[in-house]
Amino acid sequence: MEHITSRKNETVRAAAELRRASVRRGQGAFLCEGARLCTDAAISGLSMRALFYTQRAEQKYAPYLEKIRPLAEKIYLLEPAVADLLADTKNSQEVFCVCDMPTQACVTPQQFYAKPAAGMCVALEQLQDPSNLGTILRTAEALGIGQILLCGECCDPFSPKALRGGMGAAFRLSLVRLPALPEALPHLRRAGWRTLAAVPDASAAKVTKTRFDVPTVMAVGNEGSGLLPETIRACSGCVTIPMSGRAESLNASASAAILMWEMTRECGDERG
Amino acid sequence: MEHITSRKNETVRAAAELRRASVRRGQGAFLCEGARLCTDAAISGLSMRALFYTQRAEQKYAPYLEKIRPLAEKIYLLEPAVADLLADTKNSQEVFCVCDMPTQACVTPQQFYAKPAAGMCVALEQLQDPSNLGTILRTAEALGIGQILLCGECCDPFSPKALRGGMGAAFRLSLVRLPALPEALPHLRRAGWRTLAAVPDASAAKVTKTRFDVPTVMAVGNEGSGLLPETIRACSGCVTIPMSGRAESLNASASAAILMWEMTRECGDERG
Repeated sequence: MEHITSRKNETVRAAAELRRASVRRGQGAFLCEGARLCTDAAISGLSMRALFYTQRAEQKYAPYLEKIRPLAEKIYLLEPAVADLLADTKNSQEVFCVCDMPTQACVTPQQFYAKPAAGMCVALEQLQDPSNLGTILRTAEALGIGQILLCGECCDPFSPKALRGGMGAAFRLSLVRLPALPEALPHLRRAGWRTLAAVPDASAAKVTKTRFDVPTVMAVGNEGSGLLPETIRACSGCVTIPMSGRAESLNASASAAILMWEMTRECGDERG
Repeated sequence: MEHITSRKNETVRAAAELRRASVRRGQGAFLCEGARLCTDAAISGLSMRALFYTQRAEQKYAPYLEKIRPLAEKIYLLEPAVADLLADTKNSQEVFCVCDMPTQACVTPQQFYAKPAAGMCVALEQLQDPSNLGTILRTAEALGIGQILLCGECCDPFSPKALRGGMGAAFRLSLVRLPALPEALPHLRRAGWRTLAAVPDASAAKVTKTRFDVPTVMAVGNEGSGLLPETIRACSGCVTIPMSGRAESLNASASAAILMWEMTRECGDERG
């Protein structure tokens, strides 16, 4: 175990760089913070390049670290001032790891189109808030939706905030990045997917009146402006969540939760 | 219109104090930030003691301010440095108002017990995260659940963060503060409510197999630890959201969204 005392240490600086999406993409790796999340990464079978913790974390999170250590390639003990360079939270637990991106989080569009449609899938278009994204991934996993399309300028599921909100769901879901959903929709249809656009529009079909007995991609839009008009046009149908009251719309993660729930409601008897 | 240039101004200092829950309770008033949220407060019929904005906000949010101004008792123009004292967000819109607590947000337990049970109701026990609370209130309003019980050490729906997450739902919902849910449950039952505890326990009744044709209070617990054991024991039944995958549980606002959706799903045909 190497002891790192300098804030100029190259290994720590390289790990801290992974807080940027472009660096994560370039290196095919990400930084993960927190005893529980790092344990989750380890037991989810991710390849762990490095584990970092401070002496006080070693005492406080001993049961977690016992599980993680045998699975880490390298282990570093950090001084608290050095740990600060990696921390994204105010009250950091001072446990971090660097992992390879999971293979199933790097499915290419071509690989996805080549597979015959099966099950349920959610396409998130230009989602802005990493906490919303994390919550949606966590809900997807809990409801048994294993395939998520991240479309357009969608925030990154491996950012520190999205990882926290997702409770490790990103380690296990199949994630596909699509540069533009409108152009992807014909490919999805050819692969056998029904494509539905979720819209806050009372004239659209109610999601409660929609049967989910065929493989379906549900397109869910950005927090502020919803789906792109060209996405809505290119989908095979529109669905809506019936609402009352003066609320103009639901929060993105609440509406995604209700949609995913309806998509998998019939499977509820086999679940849980 | 008074022009406030000093950060020591008493009116602004008193308004800033309202960011503290105890001051809000003592004064029966709250501080609200943002052009849209202040407009929402005004058109929801809240009594607006004061409206504050800066010169740049006056230009940028003119259409909003036109609607709000006729409904405000007093109007103050602030220098940006003074507006900083009221701002809770990084990029403040520099529009603020102080409003009286809405009457329906101050329903006493006795008033609530005295009313015969009707419709659906959610009891939130010791919710910690104001954003979660805001999201849950917003979802409740959108789904037509108008009665919310805030139980135990639950965070405050009129904190700046909860107001932002709630998109003004707290202005219109009936909110009741209960010091302790376990002790309140017998009163609720006497008033005619069925009381259900939402638990992440696969042996509980599935929410999909539960009919919501009688007035029901659904108790939803804290983010980390769920409901208190004494609350679960004192409820007339338990329900669960069937889950799959390795997710141990859903995020509090996602699980509340699914529960409220199921509680009102049958009404969906009349909604929207």
